[in-house]
Amino acid sequence: MFISELIPVKDALKIIDNIEIKLDIERIPLEEAYNRVLAEDIKALLDSPSFDRSAMDGYAVQAEDTFGSSETSPAYLKVVDRICAGDTSKIVLKQGEAIKIATGAPIPEGANAVVMEEYTYEENNDLEVSKTLFPGENVAPFGEDFKKGDELLKSGKLLRPQDIGIITSAGHDTINVFKKPKIGVITTGNELVMSKSEIKGAKIINSNYYTLKALVESTLAVPELTHCVDDAQKVKEQIETFLESCDAVITTGGTAISKGDVVVDVVDKMGEVLIHGAGIRPGKPFGFGVINGTPIFMLSGYPVASMVQFDIFTRNYLLKMQNIHKEFSIIKKTASRKIASTLGRTDYVRAKTEGNLVHPLKIDGSGIIRSMVESDCYILIEENVEGINEGEECDVLLYDSLKV
Amino acid sequence: MFISELIPVKDALKIIDNIEIKLDIERIPLEEAYNRVLAEDIKALLDSPSFDRSAMDGYAVQAEDTFGSSETSPAYLKVVDRICAGDTSKIVLKQGEAIKIATGAPIPEGANAVVMEEYTYEENNDLEVSKTLFPGENVAPFGEDFKKGDELLKSGKLLRPQDIGIITSAGHDTINVFKKPKIGVITTGNELVMSKSEIKGAKIINSNYYTLKALVESTLAVPELTHCVDDAQKVKEQIETFLESCDAVITTGGTAISKGDVVVDVVDKMGEVLIHGAGIRPGKPFGFGVINGTPIFMLSGYPVASMVQFDIFTRNYLLKMQNIHKEFSIIKKTASRKIASTLGRTDYVRAKTEGNLVHPLKIDGSGIIRSMVESDCYILIEENVEGINEGEECDVLLYDSLKV
Repeated sequence: MFISELIPVKDALKIIDNIEIKLDIERIPLEEAYNRVLAEDIKALLDSPSFDRSAMDGYAVQAEDTFGSSETSPAYLKVVDRICAGDTSKIVLKQGEAIKIATGAPIPEGANAVVMEEYTYEENNDLEVSKTLFPGENVAPFGEDFKKGDELLKSGKLLRPQDIGIITSAGHDTINVFKKPKIGVITTGNELVMSKSEIKGAKIINSNYYTLKALVESTLAVPELTHCVDDAQKVKEQIETFLESCDAVITTGGTAISKGDVVVDVVDKMGEVLIHGAGIRPGKPFGFGVINGTPIFMLSGYPVASMVQFDIFTRNYLLKMQNIHKEFSIIKKTASRKIASTLGRTDYVRAKTEGNLVHPLKIDGSGIIRSMVESDCYILIEENVEGINEGEECDVLLYDSLKV
Repeated sequence: MFISELIPVKDALKIIDNIEIKLDIERIPLEEAYNRVLAEDIKALLDSPSFDRSAMDGYAVQAEDTFGSSETSPAYLKVVDRICAGDTSKIVLKQGEAIKIATGAPIPEGANAVVMEEYTYEENNDLEVSKTLFPGENVAPFGEDFKKGDELLKSGKLLRPQDIGIITSAGHDTINVFKKPKIGVITTGNELVMSKSEIKGAKIINSNYYTLKALVESTLAVPELTHCVDDAQKVKEQIETFLESCDAVITTGGTAISKGDVVVDVVDKMGEVLIHGAGIRPGKPFGFGVINGTPIFMLSGYPVASMVQFDIFTRNYLLKMQNIHKEFSIIKKTASRKIASTLGRTDYVRAKTEGNLVHPLKIDGSGIIRSMVESDCYILIEENVEGINEGEECDVLLYDSLKV
């Protein structure tokens, strides 16, 4: 197969985005919830706090007893009980009385304020209070954080530590989250070996294997990897294996836009190839297909091309498979030198930011991994733009902004 | 113990930063390298590519044979061999000849350019080339990415997918990385239970346990958690246990600045308390100590206070334990309304950004987890500033920017 018409990036993204995702849900304990995606709305099962509680270590009192009190003219009260956090006083506090109270302990009946220990002096149950309190001072009222039935979080939330905190406080032990999708990665190429010790003649090391594993991990999905020689039958068998156990398949190699490229041909026979050749540089030989509803991302064998294709076409789809909806966050920087570009293809120029400037790297070529290593962003040059002049403002996509 | 003088945030950070870190190193396979921190400089063990190779699928030729060729006036060549990626041609190419070549295959001796398949037409080993090539066109020269001995990455690098790619390409199978520190977390408090089903009277759920676990995980360190009642002997025993197995200890609760706060007292007896009370809001009751060289971060029992204390005082230290040196990246936003502040304490006001605006949340209080859940940043108000006016520019620290 041979597609001479390159599909523009925007159209390619639309085609990919159209492939329906079946979201799976699993129930997990809250200990495992960090960086998982909530698959239910969370309502509070209880009130928090479930009683008026002390916000400070000090003494529960009637605020009225302290009106007009100061360092020079303290109020004198009688300490009638002492309660720690987790305890409840059985005493009903009366005028002129105080109950020593720890942070978090319930305000005793009859009390309406807490004076911080710093403003008191106690000797033999005699208490001096050197401050005027207002009713409610240092009291965290019932339901202050949330009330039973309150909706606290919406399904689809990528859980941060504080989100886990509120779910726990709200009385939940386990939650529904979206399952991490399993992504089968097949690197192809007769020229590839797994280690320096295996290099002979025209063989090179299969860096894509390790890069793709990390790329998939960076989306929180679970990679399963294998390598395959350029043999249609073997590639077909491996895709079949992954179709059984995986939610999506990524391949590298065998996508160049010429006759007889094994991966695209195999996918074409097994299902439908929807994209073959994209208006992107580097990364033109990008393929995308669907076999029985499972998306197949066919990336280039060239390390840099495959990384760019992954970032632009694959990454956000893997996130969407976990119900994380992320868009590219483009920022503006000033180009430190002129950048040439090709009409008809969106360029992703590897570059390095420095304050408001962005320096396009001088090294180019889809095989030069160093260009990805020494850069921290892509400069985007749209397909209808011929290039960017020195000092011109340009669109920048930081690698860090791609992460979840 | 009782410290009435609050230590300003900057000074507290200096004290913490002064505690020496012993970095441990381990050797791991590259499959496990994502998000690990490199503990050695990486040099290339080989040249990449190790031979001149074809950058395209096409035909290797002598560029001189194509000079002046075009669609209307093609050059005519004879195909004398065909090589796939991973193969080497044994033929020395002569004038008038072409060798079919796959992307990545070594350029045959005698050839100096590759014509893309798109610009050719072949029938029975007769080849038409409809394009003028320059010498070196579509040839990725030997050592183009890096040469043997080149330094590719420096120790201390947090490894991204592309970094792992280049390390692999450079011939390494395993690398030295900094060990993930083990962090012992002890939540304290008689009032805390682990689940809604255990709530009785003045008990509340120990959300700190789950939040702290996730907070430690967010620094890539490995948490080990336990809960302890407010009993000096039990807290001491638990700290001793963690001192044996962990690289740092975090506690929550028992730090309020008053007499008899169990955690601070215990640490004071076991080692040295260097900070007790910090000029921060929320989070004043922050403690920091050292026992036999191991740092002990004593956070407040209040959920919000402990999160802020973790973010400001603990997070970057845990990163430094992996040789990740991160500074707060403060950005500027415009306050959408007036914010009051206390002189003498650095305020960390929970807020939500919206474009260039930042909205301080109206909910306050160290116990209101909702304030952390509904916000995406802190507004920082320095200790010598009384507040921020509506429309005034202010310092913002995005939660997302704290992550590695």
